[in-house]
Amino acid sequence: MKPTKQDIKNSYQRIQPFIHQTPVLTSQYFNNVIGANLFFKCENFQKVGAFKYRGAINAVLQLTAEQKAKGVIAHSSGNHAQALALAAKTQGIKAHIVMPSNAPKVKSDAVANYGAKITFCMPTLQARESTVATLIKKYGYTEIHPFDNDHIIEGQATAAMELMEEVPNLDVIIAPVGGGGLLSGTALAAHYFGKNIMVYAGEPQGADDAKRSFEAGKLIPMVNPNTIADGLLTSLSPRTFAIIKEHVSGIFTVSEKEITEAMKLVWERMKIIIEPSSAVPVAAVLKNKKMFRNKKSGIVITGGNVDVANLPFNKFIE
Amino acid sequence: MKPTKQDIKNSYQRIQPFIHQTPVLTSQYFNNVIGANLFFKCENFQKVGAFKYRGAINAVLQLTAEQKAKGVIAHSSGNHAQALALAAKTQGIKAHIVMPSNAPKVKSDAVANYGAKITFCMPTLQARESTVATLIKKYGYTEIHPFDNDHIIEGQATAAMELMEEVPNLDVIIAPVGGGGLLSGTALAAHYFGKNIMVYAGEPQGADDAKRSFEAGKLIPMVNPNTIADGLLTSLSPRTFAIIKEHVSGIFTVSEKEITEAMKLVWERMKIIIEPSSAVPVAAVLKNKKMFRNKKSGIVITGGNVDVANLPFNKFIE
Repeated sequence: MKPTKQDIKNSYQRIQPFIHQTPVLTSQYFNNVIGANLFFKCENFQKVGAFKYRGAINAVLQLTAEQKAKGVIAHSSGNHAQALALAAKTQGIKAHIVMPSNAPKVKSDAVANYGAKITFCMPTLQARESTVATLIKKYGYTEIHPFDNDHIIEGQATAAMELMEEVPNLDVIIAPVGGGGLLSGTALAAHYFGKNIMVYAGEPQGADDAKRSFEAGKLIPMVNPNTIADGLLTSLSPRTFAIIKEHVSGIFTVSEKEITEAMKLVWERMKIIIEPSSAVPVAAVLKNKKMFRNKKSGIVITGGNVDVANLPFNKFIE
Repeated sequence: MKPTKQDIKNSYQRIQPFIHQTPVLTSQYFNNVIGANLFFKCENFQKVGAFKYRGAINAVLQLTAEQKAKGVIAHSSGNHAQALALAAKTQGIKAHIVMPSNAPKVKSDAVANYGAKITFCMPTLQARESTVATLIKKYGYTEIHPFDNDHIIEGQATAAMELMEEVPNLDVIIAPVGGGGLLSGTALAAHYFGKNIMVYAGEPQGADDAKRSFEAGKLIPMVNPNTIADGLLTSLSPRTFAIIKEHVSGIFTVSEKEITEAMKLVWERMKIIIEPSSAVPVAAVLKNKKMFRNKKSGIVITGGNVDVANLPFNKFIE
C-alpha cells in the first residue's frame, strides 16, 4: 500500500517544527535560456544541507518508545547518514551509521559531529548490509532505510508540497532519481495536491537503472553505477518503482559533462552551492528545453554538500 | 559636502525599481561559533552579482540628457565594470570600459555580454587613467568613478538601509573596505537611519591602507596591494576617508589564510557563493569574536563573482 494523501499531510504536520521551509529561488538567466518560468526549491538550505532530513526526521518521530530506547541504524556514506544522525540527536536517540571504509573523511566527520556512532566496513553493498544485520542482532536497532521506507517517502514528499503551496499551478516538477525516495514522494505529492502536474526525473547516464526500468516496465537494478552525482548511485526498490511507474511521466538521462556544466552554471549565475546530484535535473532541463518551454516548472535542488576543496569543474569542462 | 540623509533617501527611491531587494540570511552555525546574532545582507544575489550595481545605476540615472547621449566610461577590471555596463544598457546609454590587459577573460566576457565597449591597456593605474582621459577627450564620455563619487556612495548606502529596515535595532554593521564607497555609504546610512549602530570594516592585511590611514588620521595610500580579495585592492580617496574618519568605529585586518578559511566556511555552511572580498568581514568577525558577542550584527556580503574553476582553497588552506 503506497502512502495516502492523509499519510503525507500527517507527515508534513509532524515534521514541520523540525525542518526549514526552504526558499524557492528564480533566475532570470535560466528563464531566458530555457524560455520557461523555473522555480528552484532549494533543499541545499535544508538542515544537514539536503532534503534527506525531511524523511529521516519523519521516520525517527514515528518510532515506538521501545524502538527509541534501542536506537536506529543505517548504512550510508551520503546525506542520509548525516540526516539520520541529526534527526536521532534532536530526539535524544542513539544513531549508528555503517559507512564504507572509502567514504571521504569530510563525510564521516560530519556524521561524527552529529554524535552518531560509526562502524566502517568494506565498500561493497554486501558488506554494508551484513554489517548492519550483525549490529541489529547485537543491539536491537531499528534500520531506517534511505528510501525503501514509506515514512521516508512521505517525508521527502513534503518538499514538493511546500513548492506547490508557494508556487501555485505548476505545470511540471522535475527531481533527480537515485533510489527513488524523493522522486516517488514528489510524484505522490503532485498527484494528491497538484492539478495535472507532470512529474519528470533527471538521472545520470552512468546510473540509469530508473530510465531502463521505466522503459522496460520491470525493475532492472544497476550493476556498476558510476557518476559524480554521488547521491544517485543507488537503484530503485520495488516500493519506489511501483509509485514511479504509476505517477512519473518521463525520465531524462544526462552525461557527466552535462551534470558538471549545469552545476557550474547554477553556481555562477545563482550564487548558490549545489551538489552534483542537484545539477542532474537542471542538466535535464537544459538538454530538453522544448519540453519545458513556456511551462511553469519546479526543479527540486536536493542538496549542497560538496567538498569545495575538490571540485569536478576542471575534470569535466574544457 | 558629504551626502545628506535626503540624498540617500532620494537615491533609494530612484534605484528601487532597478535593483533586487536582496535577502538577509542567518546561520545557526555562525551564530553558535560567534555567540552573536548575525545577519548576512546578501548582495551576492544583487544584479551582476554584487552591490556595485546600486551605485552604478544611481549614477547613471542622474546623468543629464547631454551626458546620456555621449555615454559613460570607467576603468575597472572588477564588479564596477559589469555594474556600469549593465546600468548603462538598461538606460540605452553607451558604456566604455577600460580594462587592464591582464584582466581575466571571464571578467571581460561578462562586460562584453552587457554590451559595453572594452579598451584594453597596460595593467598600471597610470595607463588606465591616461587611457580613460584620452577616450573622454575623443568621445566626451562622463567618467563614473567606482567610489570617488557621491552618487556611487549614496547608491551603496542603500544596502545597509535595506538591512536596517529588515532587521531593526542592529548593534553593529561590518562591511569590507577597498576604495571605501561601500563603507562610507554604510556608515552614513547607519548614522542617518540607525540608532547608535557601530560601523566596522574588515580589510585584508595585504591592502591595509584604510587601517593605517584611520590610525594615522591622514590618508596613506597603498603602494603594492596584494590580496586574493580582488575587490579591495584600491585605496581610499579623500572623499571616502573623510566620511570613514567621522563615522566608522574601527577597522579589523585579516590575513589571506583567514579570508580563505572564512570564505570556505560560508560556502560549506551557508551553501552560498561569496567572493573573497565578501569573506573579509566574516573573517574579521571570526577573528574578533568578543567584539561581536551577544550583539545583533549585520554583515554586508558584497558579491559572489568568483572563477569557480580556479578557487583559492588549496592555495591557502592545509
